[in-house]
Amino acid sequence: MTTRVLVAHPQLADSTSQQFFKASLPKTGVIWEHLDAQPALDVAREQAQLRQADRIILQFPLYWYAAPASLKQWEDTVLTRTFVYGDHRYPLAGKEVGVVVTTGMPAKAFQRGGAEGLTLDAALAPLAAVAQRAKMTWLPTFAVHQFSYLTEPQKLQLVIDYQRYLTQTQPDTLANRQAWFAQRLPEMVQQLPAAQRPTGELITTTFDQQRDALEELADTLAMIKETEDD
Amino acid sequence: MTTRVLVAHPQLADSTSQQFFKASLPKTGVIWEHLDAQPALDVAREQAQLRQADRIILQFPLYWYAAPASLKQWEDTVLTRTFVYGDHRYPLAGKEVGVVVTTGMPAKAFQRGGAEGLTLDAALAPLAAVAQRAKMTWLPTFAVHQFSYLTEPQKLQLVIDYQRYLTQTQPDTLANRQAWFAQRLPEMVQQLPAAQRPTGELITTTFDQQRDALEELADTLAMIKETEDD
Repeated sequence: MTTRVLVAHPQLADSTSQQFFKASLPKTGVIWEHLDAQPALDVAREQAQLRQADRIILQFPLYWYAAPASLKQWEDTVLTRTFVYGDHRYPLAGKEVGVVVTTGMPAKAFQRGGAEGLTLDAALAPLAAVAQRAKMTWLPTFAVHQFSYLTEPQKLQLVIDYQRYLTQTQPDTLANRQAWFAQRLPEMVQQLPAAQRPTGELITTTFDQQRDALEELADTLAMIKETEDD
Repeated sequence: MTTRVLVAHPQLADSTSQQFFKASLPKTGVIWEHLDAQPALDVAREQAQLRQADRIILQFPLYWYAAPASLKQWEDTVLTRTFVYGDHRYPLAGKEVGVVVTTGMPAKAFQRGGAEGLTLDAALAPLAAVAQRAKMTWLPTFAVHQFSYLTEPQKLQLVIDYQRYLTQTQPDTLANRQAWFAQRLPEMVQQLPAAQRPTGELITTTFDQQRDALEELADTLAMIKETEDD
């Protein structure tokens, strides 16, 4: 799977959250692009890259309840009508589109009666409408509120959650999470220093055992449910 | 009253609707500005002009369910947090903000189940949230769908409706409409060629008479209602 991350931020170097995300990118399968860094958008090239991606991530800080102007410029320029739905061809159909959005306010601000007075879903409705017009699949939004207040353990968790958002099979079910970890654990263990590797291998073994146990449990539950339905 | 019209359109000269609006501007009380024409926004100047305006009109074609990038650039640059709500000062509080939006689709496309799948209100929700944050008064949107399909009589009507949206006292009640016309009719008649002026004066007289008759009717209705309420 190829994931294309399009970052819109006018001062990327000054953004601790964007630098954090950049350092957290998975090693493979992800192409990262900073829209504001391009003097002029190469429409043909951008469109070709969209065609090649399976998942497109739009990543930005929320400015006035929307993406920064550079993302809108990208939309207005790259997403021509002919490209998106001309002649009833939909080259983006079926591709996934996800939004990674940072905000300076707590999550509770984004609701009726909250300080911002509208939900993130309402703020992102115009973007979701573009996805709908292109017959793309909209992923649940990945929102990070008040990044600078996160603790170190929260940041470690954020690295994993972010990587999963970029590369894990959706929807975000237990089975898909397990499969994602199972694929990455051996690689992670191999990257550990020699002294810590036995611990890493133990974790892998425990993970596999628990996964088997969970699958058995799921089978049992399914059986019970089947009996009840009769 | 001073109305400031901010137009966002990347190709203004090619836009028949924007050229039509420009030609339809009231002669006085309106300051018109094309955002895309400015090489760099003068933040202090833009902010000063916002302070001086009573009504701010954001005028643009709907691109991907939002304003063109130039308006977002203006928001991101001119509407600094300090300016809009810093130190609990709200310099824009109480000012009216209205949107004049043109779309290439019929009105019915903008609803659930319609071709666009979302309402104009939903598309403009991020802008309305900015207005709310600034404690401004949001006016009902002035939408023009498929301008190029309008007939000549519809266009004549559009001139009047557009001028009223820019300068008439809100809300758009019969009394406010009448007051707006009463103020402009003598001026309009004076601008007529000499041969047509008697007709114009007749229209003014008829308008005044009908206005008096309407007021009497309103008084009578109010009296009847009062009796019923007892």
